[in-house]
Amino acid sequence: MKNRIITISREFGSGGRTIGKETAAKLGVPCYDQELIEKLAEESGFAPAYIQEQGEYAPYNGWLNALTGRSNGLTNQDQLWVLQRKIILELAEKGPCVIVGRCADFILRGEADCLTVFIHADMEKRAERIVKVYGERPETPEKRLRDKDKRRASYYQFYTDMTWGDARHYDVALDSGRLGIDKCVSTLVSLY
Amino acid sequence: MKNRIITISREFGSGGRTIGKETAAKLGVPCYDQELIEKLAEESGFAPAYIQEQGEYAPYNGWLNALTGRSNGLTNQDQLWVLQRKIILELAEKGPCVIVGRCADFILRGEADCLTVFIHADMEKRAERIVKVYGERPETPEKRLRDKDKRRASYYQFYTDMTWGDARHYDVALDSGRLGIDKCVSTLVSLY
Repeated sequence: MKNRIITISREFGSGGRTIGKETAAKLGVPCYDQELIEKLAEESGFAPAYIQEQGEYAPYNGWLNALTGRSNGLTNQDQLWVLQRKIILELAEKGPCVIVGRCADFILRGEADCLTVFIHADMEKRAERIVKVYGERPETPEKRLRDKDKRRASYYQFYTDMTWGDARHYDVALDSGRLGIDKCVSTLVSLY
Repeated sequence: MKNRIITISREFGSGGRTIGKETAAKLGVPCYDQELIEKLAEESGFAPAYIQEQGEYAPYNGWLNALTGRSNGLTNQDQLWVLQRKIILELAEKGPCVIVGRCADFILRGEADCLTVFIHADMEKRAERIVKVYGERPETPEKRLRDKDKRRASYYQFYTDMTWGDARHYDVALDSGRLGIDKCVSTLVSLY
């Protein structure tokens, strides 16, 4: 019997991580997100901050790769992908859980009994949220969101060959800005 | 106070219409589907009188326009769009309801208090369903689905300038093949 996993992909600032944590708490299962990144860091020897950043860049970075070398054909980022894939598969094997980000929906296809989720919200709602949660920055919140959106979309596309945000890749997609965090959590709990 | 409307966009064979009908029945509101709206448009005359009312879209008199060089550039489909749009706005004005298809989500933006829904399912589940519901045809169910998918996507794109099936256009998107019709209905009822 395969473990029941919820995977959450989310737009930056949509509250997807909060929804993941609250859903996991209600279901009494662990939620992996930051923990996953730290575990990756331990195994790879890279710093957590570096991994977090790399996780959101599309891997092709021509001249830099040329300088740093791709002796085994794998960039640092490719190696991280391999590691993170391994860790996600291990976590899914261990027991029911919620996994936020890291293309877990794609990695666990056919490997676990997943409820795959996409959380999004409009620019205005997300801008409001990132300022509240992460504070002000020199760039406008809209610019920060557009940058993050681009990075996540191209990372996802590169490693999964699927379109980020296409409803058809997910069992359920919710607009957290319109529905609110609580309704998203109760919907996921009842669909689990 | 604007009326509360559920709009359902759906892939052919995903059971979106059934979900719309059952949700409406549970909520005790009417459900208007594509056929009904087309019928309303036809009954309304789909005719010069009705269209002339629209001022800028008038007149509907193809060969005369061609002769006088006063063609307004509208195809029959455009005129049907205009009519359907008018009917959908009237239905939304009349009271709470469920509207299936016809880009109602786009038409009612800012005009009503909508819960916008997209229902989809994978090819295999939809193929199974269309054979059961609509019977066998000379073409394979997969070919019928691909044709319908293409048409709906291009219709939607043409009239809304948005991408069909992009999760970010909808408050909620559900995979009816994975979740089942009943869970989709109960989710929509509880989100309404």
